[in-house]
Amino acid sequence: MGDMREILEQQCGLNKTDPVLAAVSGGPDSVALLHLLRGLGYPLVCATFNHRLRPEAADEVAYVRHAAESLGVPFVTDSADVAAYAGAEGLSIEEAARTLRYRFLFRAAREAGAQAVAAGHTADDQAETVLMHFLRGAGLAGLKGMSARLVLPVFDPEIPLVRPLLAWQRADTEAYCRENGLAPLYDPSNADTTYFRNRLRHELIPALESYNPRIRQALVRTALALQGDEALLAEVIEAAWQKSVLEQGTGFVAFERAALESGSPALRRNLFKRAAFTLRPGLRDVDFAALERAAALQSADLTGGLRLFVEGAKIYLAAYEADLPFSDWPQVGEQFSVISDQFSVSSRAPVEGNQCSLGEGWLLTCEPVLLITEHWLLITDPWSAWLDADLTGDTLTGTSRLRVRAMRAGERFQPLGMSGASVKLQDFFVNVKLPRRARKKWPLVCVNDEIAWVVGLRLAHPFRVTEKTKRALHLQIKRLP
Amino acid sequence: MGDMREILEQQCGLNKTDPVLAAVSGGPDSVALLHLLRGLGYPLVCATFNHRLRPEAADEVAYVRHAAESLGVPFVTDSADVAAYAGAEGLSIEEAARTLRYRFLFRAAREAGAQAVAAGHTADDQAETVLMHFLRGAGLAGLKGMSARLVLPVFDPEIPLVRPLLAWQRADTEAYCRENGLAPLYDPSNADTTYFRNRLRHELIPALESYNPRIRQALVRTALALQGDEALLAEVIEAAWQKSVLEQGTGFVAFERAALESGSPALRRNLFKRAAFTLRPGLRDVDFAALERAAALQSADLTGGLRLFVEGAKIYLAAYEADLPFSDWPQVGEQFSVISDQFSVSSRAPVEGNQCSLGEGWLLTCEPVLLITEHWLLITDPWSAWLDADLTGDTLTGTSRLRVRAMRAGERFQPLGMSGASVKLQDFFVNVKLPRRARKKWPLVCVNDEIAWVVGLRLAHPFRVTEKTKRALHLQIKRLP
Repeated sequence: MGDMREILEQQCGLNKTDPVLAAVSGGPDSVALLHLLRGLGYPLVCATFNHRLRPEAADEVAYVRHAAESLGVPFVTDSADVAAYAGAEGLSIEEAARTLRYRFLFRAAREAGAQAVAAGHTADDQAETVLMHFLRGAGLAGLKGMSARLVLPVFDPEIPLVRPLLAWQRADTEAYCRENGLAPLYDPSNADTTYFRNRLRHELIPALESYNPRIRQALVRTALALQGDEALLAEVIEAAWQKSVLEQGTGFVAFERAALESGSPALRRNLFKRAAFTLRPGLRDVDFAALERAAALQSADLTGGLRLFVEGAKIYLAAYEADLPFSDWPQVGEQFSVISDQFSVSSRAPVEGNQCSLGEGWLLTCEPVLLITEHWLLITDPWSAWLDADLTGDTLTGTSRLRVRAMRAGERFQPLGMSGASVKLQDFFVNVKLPRRARKKWPLVCVNDEIAWVVGLRLAHPFRVTEKTKRALHLQIKRLP
Repeated sequence: MGDMREILEQQCGLNKTDPVLAAVSGGPDSVALLHLLRGLGYPLVCATFNHRLRPEAADEVAYVRHAAESLGVPFVTDSADVAAYAGAEGLSIEEAARTLRYRFLFRAAREAGAQAVAAGHTADDQAETVLMHFLRGAGLAGLKGMSARLVLPVFDPEIPLVRPLLAWQRADTEAYCRENGLAPLYDPSNADTTYFRNRLRHELIPALESYNPRIRQALVRTALALQGDEALLAEVIEAAWQKSVLEQGTGFVAFERAALESGSPALRRNLFKRAAFTLRPGLRDVDFAALERAAALQSADLTGGLRLFVEGAKIYLAAYEADLPFSDWPQVGEQFSVISDQFSVSSRAPVEGNQCSLGEGWLLTCEPVLLITEHWLLITDPWSAWLDADLTGDTLTGTSRLRVRAMRAGERFQPLGMSGASVKLQDFFVNVKLPRRARKKWPLVCVNDEIAWVVGLRLAHPFRVTEKTKRALHLQIKRLP
């Protein structure tokens, strides 16, 4: 019992101020737990759930009620038709029973202001859990088995499930009951080997004892060792995740490339795995070879229709169908096709004076400049351009007509410096390494449908400012904070 | 075969310049490996080991020799009496066979200037390995199974063991042999279920298939997932180890307390576990509760006669019997019992002028001071003390007689500030939190066997400098770099 105090305080983190909701089935494990917590002075609520799976169920509830009352412990109960729920949700009876029972327990715990839900899982349950996960091909998260204290966010965001008896054998709880004059119930369904867990308990574990007579202890030891490893890994991955994830959206996770590069391949493998499981919660596994390529920061197709690719300073892990954010780039929407001009504005899109919005905070402005200085032309900001104003519109009225639109199939333009020759816009985009998905809606400023400025990338040669230029247009694109 | 190129280059890290030593038994796995590596253009040496366990062994060597020669591959072989070695070393036949075979393979690889030893382990071997470790209650290191590339320092510090066939089923290697007209040998001992591994292969795995028909694939998946986790953990722990271990000696590891405190409990748990396994290589397990206390930086007795304790700025994990270094503290040895004095020196230990060495670089010096200034007395360096010189020896000759010795049982002294009262030295040590093990040989500067200065800790009240002091002695202890 000396150890038990330590387990309850240190591992389960329980105090003696707030009530603990003990989940009691009436079997030796939970009956021993209830009695033991009571004896150590923990304020308690005793809860039992009627799964309505067996005719004895109502009698068992009555037994637990009596056990609670005889200890002076408040009692709560509820019931549900587990078999019906399992059928409706396509779950196994075991899964359905667990879900409905836990829902009840955590709801009752919250209503009672309980600090925790306490369950009577023993070292035997732990061995069975580890074995079950092992047979399914689990990773660390499954093989580490059950923890002494754990929050299950699906049931309650704060109240933990605690398991004080994980170091006890099932035989220890039975002995405890005998020594304390308790007469627990023995659930006959525990012998039913149509349940997977019962098959493990009654058939497989005894068979494994012919390979290792201390197999139960071995599995418990494995669980404990892996819990320590998993806690450290979780910590390291969480810290790296916080440091390297820039954005998470529907169907994608965007990492900061530099942050990933500063870590090791093993860390990246784990980050991408976490991202994959975040995007595809039902995913069983991530293809190893693909993960290796991803860890080497090469593009890779991962299991589950996910793709990893590098894009400038970002690395995306994204579902094929995901709409990735374009917030880093100016883009023209279907609705734009804007006309902006120097002195008057005619537009089918949000335009205010000599400027128009491209969405996502991007703003294109257009200003007349009557005095050209060399200084301006030396400005290397790619988001600025100077055009010869007299080439941009009606010279008689002095009105420029600029239209902002997206590219057309096969379209060509004449980049600044290439007099006479023109290139395919598509090839130009490839050459300047514009990410593929940004090309389709990249804003092009046009004069009479001819490209004058590939925004942020290159001016068209014919529209450049020359010695003969009298008036210029200063185009600028910027992003509002 | 496309994948195989990638496996050989990326996962196994092989080049086509240096030879690869293929370990060939003559069975389908290794015969397929030899043929496949040859076909892909890797320069090879074929090696086979005669374990002398079966009458067919010599014929099998001849078969492998022939297979190598028919491919134009150089051949090396050796043999040993495995059964005799197993008996002499108390090993199982399997362990003895593995040890002698690997010794031969890595020796031959080094002689051949090989870049790696390649073995034909398949996904089936991987599943068996994971299962074997699982049954023994292994942690991550065992459950992760075999790696595609691994250095085994016991056999060679540099040459890795590579396993290109870990993604192939055993049936794949048999099919490969058939397709390529190879007629491998079938080792009859593979059916011998007195060998543990063969029992797993022929009995347990088929039995587990009734729980999960794809159990082999599940185990291989587990191995791959855990390999990724283990690589990251190893990295994190190695980095923390480098950062926090101050000293490693026979039977102890000394950590920097501040470095451990800046990490998490999970990290500390892993560092202490690593330290425990370093100190006790044969250790199976570390007691969980003790590890928890250790992780909370409380003193703890760990499994294997190891103790964790905090000592000032250090945290030791040490064997009970370990001689911990005293280099941080001054200590007097048996051989010391030194007399040092102001103007003349008589000693049975290394003394030079008015100073004596206490070993480990610690030096005690003694200087006469004829002019006392308040400034000196305000110096708070604990390693300095001023005594009234006229109380320290023969006032007629002006000679001080100081003796440095260790404490005696039950000894008392009168700490500075406590006029009239004396305390037990033992209690004083406890009060000032001097580590227990430093007390026994803590240097005491004495006058006529009476304690004048508990070095570094407190002056004795009677020997203090007062207004009446005419001459002082300045005692100082320091450590030479």
